[in-house]
Amino acid sequence: MESLTSTELDTSKYAVQVDINNVSKDEIQPYIKLQRATNFLAGAMIFLKSNILLRNKLSFDDIKPRLLGHWGTCPAINLIYAHCTRLIKSRQLNMILVTGPGHGAPANLANLYIEGSLGKFYPEYGWSEEGLFNLIRGFSWPGGFPSHTNSELPGQIHEGGELGYALAVSFGAALDSPDLIVTCIVGDGEAETGPTATAWHAIKYLDPSTSGAVLPILNLNGFKISERTIYGCMSDDELVALFTGYGYQCRIVGDDLENIQQDMASSLEWAHDTIRKIQKAARSGQAIYKPRWPMLILRSPKGWTGPKEAHGQRIEGTFHAHQVPLPAAKKDDEELGILEKWLKSYKPEELFSEDYTPKQDLLDVFPDDSLKMGMRKETYGNYHPLSLAEWQDFSVKQEEDASPMKQAGKYLADVIKRNPEAFRIFCPDEMMSNKLDTVFDVSERVFEWDKDVFGKKGRILEILSEHTCQGMMQGYTLTGRTALFPSYEAFLGIVTTMVIQYAKFVKMGKETTWRPDIASLNYIETSTLWRQEHNGFSHQVPGFINSLINLKADMVRIYLPPDANCMISTLHHCLQSKNYVNLMISSKHPTSVWLTPEEADRHCRAGVSIWRKYSSNEGAHPHVILVGCGVETTFEVLAAAALLRKDCPRLRVRVVNVTDLMVLGFNHPHALSRTEFASIFGTHQPIIFNFHGYPSVIKDLTYDRHSVPGRLHVHGYKEEGTTTTPFHMLTANGCSRFDIAIDALQRVAPNDDVDINVHELVTEYRHRIKEHSKYIEECGQDPADLNERPSFSE
Amino acid sequence: MESLTSTELDTSKYAVQVDINNVSKDEIQPYIKLQRATNFLAGAMIFLKSNILLRNKLSFDDIKPRLLGHWGTCPAINLIYAHCTRLIKSRQLNMILVTGPGHGAPANLANLYIEGSLGKFYPEYGWSEEGLFNLIRGFSWPGGFPSHTNSELPGQIHEGGELGYALAVSFGAALDSPDLIVTCIVGDGEAETGPTATAWHAIKYLDPSTSGAVLPILNLNGFKISERTIYGCMSDDELVALFTGYGYQCRIVGDDLENIQQDMASSLEWAHDTIRKIQKAARSGQAIYKPRWPMLILRSPKGWTGPKEAHGQRIEGTFHAHQVPLPAAKKDDEELGILEKWLKSYKPEELFSEDYTPKQDLLDVFPDDSLKMGMRKETYGNYHPLSLAEWQDFSVKQEEDASPMKQAGKYLADVIKRNPEAFRIFCPDEMMSNKLDTVFDVSERVFEWDKDVFGKKGRILEILSEHTCQGMMQGYTLTGRTALFPSYEAFLGIVTTMVIQYAKFVKMGKETTWRPDIASLNYIETSTLWRQEHNGFSHQVPGFINSLINLKADMVRIYLPPDANCMISTLHHCLQSKNYVNLMISSKHPTSVWLTPEEADRHCRAGVSIWRKYSSNEGAHPHVILVGCGVETTFEVLAAAALLRKDCPRLRVRVVNVTDLMVLGFNHPHALSRTEFASIFGTHQPIIFNFHGYPSVIKDLTYDRHSVPGRLHVHGYKEEGTTTTPFHMLTANGCSRFDIAIDALQRVAPNDDVDINVHELVTEYRHRIKEHSKYIEECGQDPADLNERPSFSE
Repeated sequence: MESLTSTELDTSKYAVQVDINNVSKDEIQPYIKLQRATNFLAGAMIFLKSNILLRNKLSFDDIKPRLLGHWGTCPAINLIYAHCTRLIKSRQLNMILVTGPGHGAPANLANLYIEGSLGKFYPEYGWSEEGLFNLIRGFSWPGGFPSHTNSELPGQIHEGGELGYALAVSFGAALDSPDLIVTCIVGDGEAETGPTATAWHAIKYLDPSTSGAVLPILNLNGFKISERTIYGCMSDDELVALFTGYGYQCRIVGDDLENIQQDMASSLEWAHDTIRKIQKAARSGQAIYKPRWPMLILRSPKGWTGPKEAHGQRIEGTFHAHQVPLPAAKKDDEELGILEKWLKSYKPEELFSEDYTPKQDLLDVFPDDSLKMGMRKETYGNYHPLSLAEWQDFSVKQEEDASPMKQAGKYLADVIKRNPEAFRIFCPDEMMSNKLDTVFDVSERVFEWDKDVFGKKGRILEILSEHTCQGMMQGYTLTGRTALFPSYEAFLGIVTTMVIQYAKFVKMGKETTWRPDIASLNYIETSTLWRQEHNGFSHQVPGFINSLINLKADMVRIYLPPDANCMISTLHHCLQSKNYVNLMISSKHPTSVWLTPEEADRHCRAGVSIWRKYSSNEGAHPHVILVGCGVETTFEVLAAAALLRKDCPRLRVRVVNVTDLMVLGFNHPHALSRTEFASIFGTHQPIIFNFHGYPSVIKDLTYDRHSVPGRLHVHGYKEEGTTTTPFHMLTANGCSRFDIAIDALQRVAPNDDVDINVHELVTEYRHRIKEHSKYIEECGQDPADLNERPSFSE
Repeated sequence: MESLTSTELDTSKYAVQVDINNVSKDEIQPYIKLQRATNFLAGAMIFLKSNILLRNKLSFDDIKPRLLGHWGTCPAINLIYAHCTRLIKSRQLNMILVTGPGHGAPANLANLYIEGSLGKFYPEYGWSEEGLFNLIRGFSWPGGFPSHTNSELPGQIHEGGELGYALAVSFGAALDSPDLIVTCIVGDGEAETGPTATAWHAIKYLDPSTSGAVLPILNLNGFKISERTIYGCMSDDELVALFTGYGYQCRIVGDDLENIQQDMASSLEWAHDTIRKIQKAARSGQAIYKPRWPMLILRSPKGWTGPKEAHGQRIEGTFHAHQVPLPAAKKDDEELGILEKWLKSYKPEELFSEDYTPKQDLLDVFPDDSLKMGMRKETYGNYHPLSLAEWQDFSVKQEEDASPMKQAGKYLADVIKRNPEAFRIFCPDEMMSNKLDTVFDVSERVFEWDKDVFGKKGRILEILSEHTCQGMMQGYTLTGRTALFPSYEAFLGIVTTMVIQYAKFVKMGKETTWRPDIASLNYIETSTLWRQEHNGFSHQVPGFINSLINLKADMVRIYLPPDANCMISTLHHCLQSKNYVNLMISSKHPTSVWLTPEEADRHCRAGVSIWRKYSSNEGAHPHVILVGCGVETTFEVLAAAALLRKDCPRLRVRVVNVTDLMVLGFNHPHALSRTEFASIFGTHQPIIFNFHGYPSVIKDLTYDRHSVPGRLHVHGYKEEGTTTTPFHMLTANGCSRFDIAIDALQRVAPNDDVDINVHELVTEYRHRIKEHSKYIEECGQDPADLNERPSFSE
């Protein structure tokens, strides 16, 4: 094998050939005109604040003072939008569009305006002079639509910000929507991201009998912001090899720019025919194993139809077309002239009537409202609440030890049974390891490439890509269904910025009048750091909490249920909650059940409470307040309380558990009032807080509770760990029962009525830590008695 | 085109054929024996605490109380390690190994033990009874080597924790090391991650004339933790298509398990021959455009050679081999029996002498020490400090406005010129946009697939994958060189968990005796939220700071230089610092230069100082302390100080700037002492802190400074934003000069000697905010005077 260069590759036999004359030139004329209109509008939006249809000679005064927006990607979005519209109308399809290059909002807005979707949701953007003025002048103007797509735009289910997630989101939207086609535009910049690079594999998780289809269109214009793109530098043969390997059939459109319109129309028909064949086979019981789904690769010049050049510098087809192609149009005569010539080249007078309304022939190209991409019900108002049992049916007795995750798995199996089409679990292959495996009693995994489960309609999708799990969950949730993402605690942070983008999307959606409720995003973090003593330091990362607490308070809920009953109660609550990001953190290991189902119900509703039965004096008039938050850290707090009860019976110890972290905050909807806070956390006593994660979380939340700093002492993870034993993890980070007890003893004010020899006890506890450490080093495990439920008998 | 199924794919012409008899059976026998030894050791490490060579009958007492470790991936790592060793020895190669499946540490440890690398760095792991006992019993035992590879293991440059990054790290290591081959094992679990999926493209950035090679070996054992893998379910044809599309030539090894050893040996020789051809061509001036680099795909059963089954359940070749294949070996007779039979099948008596030392024939298979993969100098002690000019040569005059990034770009161009082989910039195509473009005066980009820069040896690598940038920077840095990663502020958080993994790697490396200094990881965040008013809400994310401050204090440095001089000074400092993670945050827009070069030098060394010339009364005896941290927020603080100076001249305002965030902390090496803190931040006056990012950062850092809570009022980003104007961004988040001035006025204790009508001024400032907002809505831009340098003339 001597071939050493990719230029010798020949994969032509796998490149799809389409007869572009399948669609006649006449048929597509109206859609070419639509693109003239949308390209015009996109250009006008970026530049004009008056004289919006160029009925007068363009002057500097007509130009916006700040030129914002991304032109480069707009013409391709307009091309795709137009031809999708044609296909929808001619074949009466249910289709939505996910725009990866969301920076090209002017294109989306232009289409949404002409199809009437903007006007439907925003009367001020109707077909009128005022509406058109609002669109053009208002774009990227303070108070108007932003420069990137977001939830304020009808039809959107994807934030047009951070790149990489459009494809996974599209697959999530298609799941369990058998009649839906999700067209997804992926730019060649976005295609370089890791999340996109692996999301191409997601067809392998799509069951054509019960789910819809995703039609990816990879748009190659060759440039990112200023550098060439990887995909833009790949030959047709390389592209065909790659995407054939991913499992697609690919059709390359645009190599012949002259015929690109006919080609796009015919290629879309081919793609739809192919989707139908795959679906028909599956739905008639003849499912094809490893069906090759269609995709299009669209080569089009960056900023196509835009200004060709300025100051002797090429613009169209180069990175100079990326953002504002004529940045000096407000002060440079040459650029102003080019701008005018360019915008006039679309002949606005043929596009808009005298009264500024779009010409009738532009409106006629669209299907009925219900099929317009900006009005598809999947993209708003499609929420299907789950049918759920009472959580108490899955509760456990207080006397038993139970694994919170094992119990959660039983509950989830029931959720799956009750909601066969509106609930999914996305997980990076950690369901078994996380002890949630009871779900497999009622459902297979979904993975169409695996012959053993092919066609079996599983509800659990396990791909080792947190990005894909997250993207799919977003797409699934934003189209009205409910999902759960269980993860190792250490690795959920992989999707940190995705969650932030999602939260921004939802925040703006809430500020519209027309986006109704959706389900919350639901996360379980388990296999937490305190029990990752076996996988070691790399698996000990509780930082996802820190990222969430900076989001808008009304969106974020963080729960740390301390036992199995609280876990199921919390899960039950989260799965029916709306519009939040819910993070649940608990253990997969069997552990004490502290509360009866009734007590757990009350405790979880309150979010925090004094655990009287584990406190001395029922928690009244405490000398010190011990707070547990998290499974293992609460266990240690209870063990410390038991120790102190035995060793200094006159010390009054109040035990508090926080299960809803946000009660601690100050401005959160769940925040305790001052009075409530004082009734639980006292006003002057030392508070020894044993927290599951980084102490910074507790410091941040309680900062503005001015009675607290100075008396609050937070123990938590301080980045100490390795492969060791659970107890050693606790002592290494100062979170063991002895550390808590020592801190409590040292903080309690000298007080006759307590009557303890602090020094002696502290020495004794330090000694016990050492003894335990010695045992651990010798025996390779923790002394068994450390796992025993602490005894509170007097 | 009727073909609808991937099963019809035929890409055999692109699959590499190798005559496996190129290497004789005899030649490889010693390396098969080496695998017997390493497989034995890996198995023994997971299970045994005594009777380590099974010289007595195995009993429950010999079994560790906690069985930890991942067996499934070990045999394949051992196969690869053995055959790489053979190739290194026979061809005298410089090769290092990056192990993606780092969970398989027993395999790496076994090889490092026998090759003598463990003993070199850790005398207690020598070739002796004690050394062998320490290895086997000590594995995953408290105090011993952890269950996953980390920096405690010789030869490692990659944390064996979170999956996805091995490949990008390998490419980073190969850059500018022309004689080095980095063999990278990628597991089929890891291959599903996005970061890996796009890192395959990294060959397109490798210049064969000046950089080394990466030899990826994709190991398919078919299973992740418990689910089948995507790649494991792909046919040879699909795999060949995919990786041919990525640009590789691929050789599939292992389809015939009988001949896998000869196949591996011959295929590695083919791979090395191919690498040499590509390099030779390039180094003789005949560079091949788009060379197809070699890769191997190794199919091997999960847990190969391990226990076949137990309790009637298949283990070898299934997910049951993933972790501990016989989990009940300490108490179940059947499992104990299987374990004994299994471990004895490797014939330990033939592997180790009576005195427990490895038999000589095992030692003889290795090359000289300098070529052993555990002793390669690239993996430790290879640090090349940069040659740097004085930063003052690039400073600007205080009277001028200057863009901190523009100036940084000039400085960086000089760094590139001075260090043509030991400095690289990795960036997701944001160099131009971030105004660092002066570097292009002295260097091209590197991108071998782009004909325009092919072979031009550029120093700036721009791929739109933050994961790839980060992975490459890690590999480059850990092999002794220095790199910089400039990014939009909003998107650096994409690599949050990667940085955490890296920090864990470095922390443990510092705790060894033998890992010397390396350069710091250096980040620039610019295009910050306050000036992402044009890209909108999605581009406004300052949360990366929050993730870093939870890392070990002695590793993290966060700087927010307030002007161009401070920026260059900081950059100069960071590029020569060692072992840290440095985050620099500053603006790309022209802004006031507040400090002369001399002042900037002093200020940056101190990290924080009172800016006497912008304070009233030279900052002495203040009524209120205004603190700026960040470019725009500092500008507003100065504007507020100027306002107050004019409107209430008797109010004494101290202006402080924090450029080194960590001075605020309590336990950080840079932390101010109590006295220093009081001398700057006072003891009782209100502190109005205008912070660049989320207020939680400041709250966390100052929490334990007990004089502070209650008088510190932090302004910062509170997740309000859209496409708007810079000033509106400030007012929406309460960070404008008026917000700061109002807060100051309202917090100052009533005081005769100040003599101001607070109510009147507050009303006036609120009115001005409204007036400005009105202007912004009408005119689409900020009033020009808001950008003027505040005047401090009396």
